Amino acid sequence: MSMREPISLRPLGDAPPTPGALPGHFFDLKEPMTLESGVILPGIRVAYQTYGTLDSERSNAILVCHALTGDQFVADIHPITGKPGWWTTLVGPGKIIDTDRYFVICSNVLGGCLGTSGPMDVNPATNEPWGLNFPVITIGDMVNVQRRLIDHLGIESLFCVIGGSMGGMQVLQWAKAYPERVFAAVPIATAARHSAQNIAFNEVGRQAIMADPDWCGGDYLRQSRSPERGLAVARMAAHITYLSQQALHRKFGRNLQDRAKITYGFEADFQVESYLRHQGTSFVERFDANAYLYITRAMDYFDLAADHGGRLAEAFRGTRTRYCVISFTSDWLFPTSESRAIIHALNAVAANVSFVEIETDKGHDAFLLDEPEFLRTLGGFIDGCATLRGFVWA
Amino acid sequence: MSMREPISLRPLGDAPPTPGALPGHFFDLKEPMTLESGVILPGIRVAYQTYGTLDSERSNAILVCHALTGDQFVADIHPITGKPGWWTTLVGPGKIIDTDRYFVICSNVLGGCLGTSGPMDVNPATNEPWGLNFPVITIGDMVNVQRRLIDHLGIESLFCVIGGSMGGMQVLQWAKAYPERVFAAVPIATAARHSAQNIAFNEVGRQAIMADPDWCGGDYLRQSRSPERGLAVARMAAHITYLSQQALHRKFGRNLQDRAKITYGFEADFQVESYLRHQGTSFVERFDANAYLYITRAMDYFDLAADHGGRLAEAFRGTRTRYCVISFTSDWLFPTSESRAIIHALNAVAANVSFVEIETDKGHDAFLLDEPEFLRTLGGFIDGCATLRGFVWA
Repeated sequence: MSMREPISLRPLGDAPPTPGALPGHFFDLKEPMTLESGVILPGIRVAYQTYGTLDSERSNAILVCHALTGDQFVADIHPITGKPGWWTTLVGPGKIIDTDRYFVICSNVLGGCLGTSGPMDVNPATNEPWGLNFPVITIGDMVNVQRRLIDHLGIESLFCVIGGSMGGMQVLQWAKAYPERVFAAVPIATAARHSAQNIAFNEVGRQAIMADPDWCGGDYLRQSRSPERGLAVARMAAHITYLSQQALHRKFGRNLQDRAKITYGFEADFQVESYLRHQGTSFVERFDANAYLYITRAMDYFDLAADHGGRLAEAFRGTRTRYCVISFTSDWLFPTSESRAIIHALNAVAANVSFVEIETDKGHDAFLLDEPEFLRTLGGFIDGCATLRGFVWA
Repeated sequence: MSMREPISLRPLGDAPPTPGALPGHFFDLKEPMTLESGVILPGIRVAYQTYGTLDSERSNAILVCHALTGDQFVADIHPITGKPGWWTTLVGPGKIIDTDRYFVICSNVLGGCLGTSGPMDVNPATNEPWGLNFPVITIGDMVNVQRRLIDHLGIESLFCVIGGSMGGMQVLQWAKAYPERVFAAVPIATAARHSAQNIAFNEVGRQAIMADPDWCGGDYLRQSRSPERGLAVARMAAHITYLSQQALHRKFGRNLQDRAKITYGFEADFQVESYLRHQGTSFVERFDANAYLYITRAMDYFDLAADHGGRLAEAFRGTRTRYCVISFTSDWLFPTSESRAIIHALNAVAANVSFVEIETDKGHDAFLLDEPEFLRTLGGFIDGCATLRGFVWA
């Protein structure tokens, strides 16, 4: 039984923030890390946020894994956009992931563009931006970096690892690679391997970026250019996949944007066009085009069963982790069938697992939204695991 | 009862083919045409193909309407790609649409790029390519041009108007605008109005084209440039929507392209990437970027009920046309719900209608493929209508 005896861990980072740049914590890996590709990557820095306090037994940590374009700012203001954190529906004092009870950690993924080492950072060997010389990374590499951060924080066992979409891939990878260190795992709106259709959508996004002459073969930072148009198109295409046909119909239908009639032109006559253009142009302010290439590639390469001859159950054999797998009815990017494949594999090894498909018309993005049944399901699972784990709250 | 007494109508065109260019027939409208936008467009040329022979009563004509990137070469070799016509599964001697029985007509749509007037043609007022000075056109305008071609061919009543996707929109428009001239109508895999999601996908394609510096604000022909990269990205994004997740999984899964292992790079490791890139690069050889803008815009603007206060049934009131509405289970671009909306409207005005949803995993593109149940359904409907119409075949 773990008594909650909080100790403040701020500041945790042993490295200073990037000069004049991001708020939050930083951790520099002391050793180079061998990536799944075999490449040895030196000088890895991890940018991360924490919320709440770690208890004396270091047992109440919840690791949140972010999605493709997410970041470590789960529950506080984003330093670039000024908007609230991306999972404030879930994480905060008194919320489902209660920061008065849990110590919540989220780090920017390897290959990202918000403080953790990625293609926009400086290659220590050349003192110039990595660009396409940054090695291609995998979900496994992202998790291996997170594991080093968790070691650094002195946490042996994570109470819970949770994430949606690519975050859910990391959850599955954690459960497979470090089963003894994950008490509970919550993969949401995700898959154990990236589907052909999803690889195809990612490839469209990459081609849109690479087609932009300002991409400069990936060398745009050195050339002081920016492939903003290509990145915006990539975001627009991806954004459609995050929503459902029904949600788009409900939100926009064929409503016109600030006009009474169609204009017989190529301006954004329809609200949905205006919305999509805004998604594209606002995205380029906070995201790096090369990071988009690297992270989408990591998703494409993800195949949890690949090391096991395609037998997904083998990836989970012997697991003692408690799983809560969640999907959404209108999510066509990571449809329920993907979650069912995970469930079948977990059942085949008699794992402790619950599965809920949430009825919603909000599509893939539902995991980021205030969906009452989703939040209720999560709350029930986390509270149940807390009881099992022996947590007693004041 | 119509006896089949064939007369050959070749050559039908009263205008010469574009010098050194396309095979087939051409028809120049004698008068300028007022578009739905109110713009008066002079000098409209229509490029079309015919198959079979018109009977003496001019009663056996079937008008085929092509989709977004289709053309008039329904059943013979495409003049640019050298590939067989796009609907040879259906149209030809002894086939479902039997060119030994019917006189089949297909014209390139207004705004297109294969002989019918569109943005790549010369503006007679300036002697330079229209580019973005070409007026924005609608599905209604496309059909009005086709109606003039049908007048020119001396055909009062079309036995059948048939088409899939945007072709199906034209079918519905024909049935609404000229109900007394359409004996049977077959709208396939289509909708009575373009959905928010489909407008969104079209907008991504347009933004990809417009983001290409070689688009030159639409003036690329005068500047001897070509926005091939943007057009290829547009095609790639659209192509995903033509297939189903299941079909992509079945055809490609996560199979690698000519390699045993992933390369940890951005080459086309996966077959689905290689396939998609090929779709993009081969498309730009046969299609014009501005035509893509104009035709997608016409689809976005399509809303058959707009003139009737949104009451779709009113668009069909009094119709005596026989309808066969067909959808495909795995088509998520024009899902069955869109066909059901058409059926409900037709039922509300007690129209003669049959509706079939074909079980297939091939997605939207199923209407172009050799789908036995689809072909059987169509064959039954056309044969039944032929009997009703009083056709007696030798």
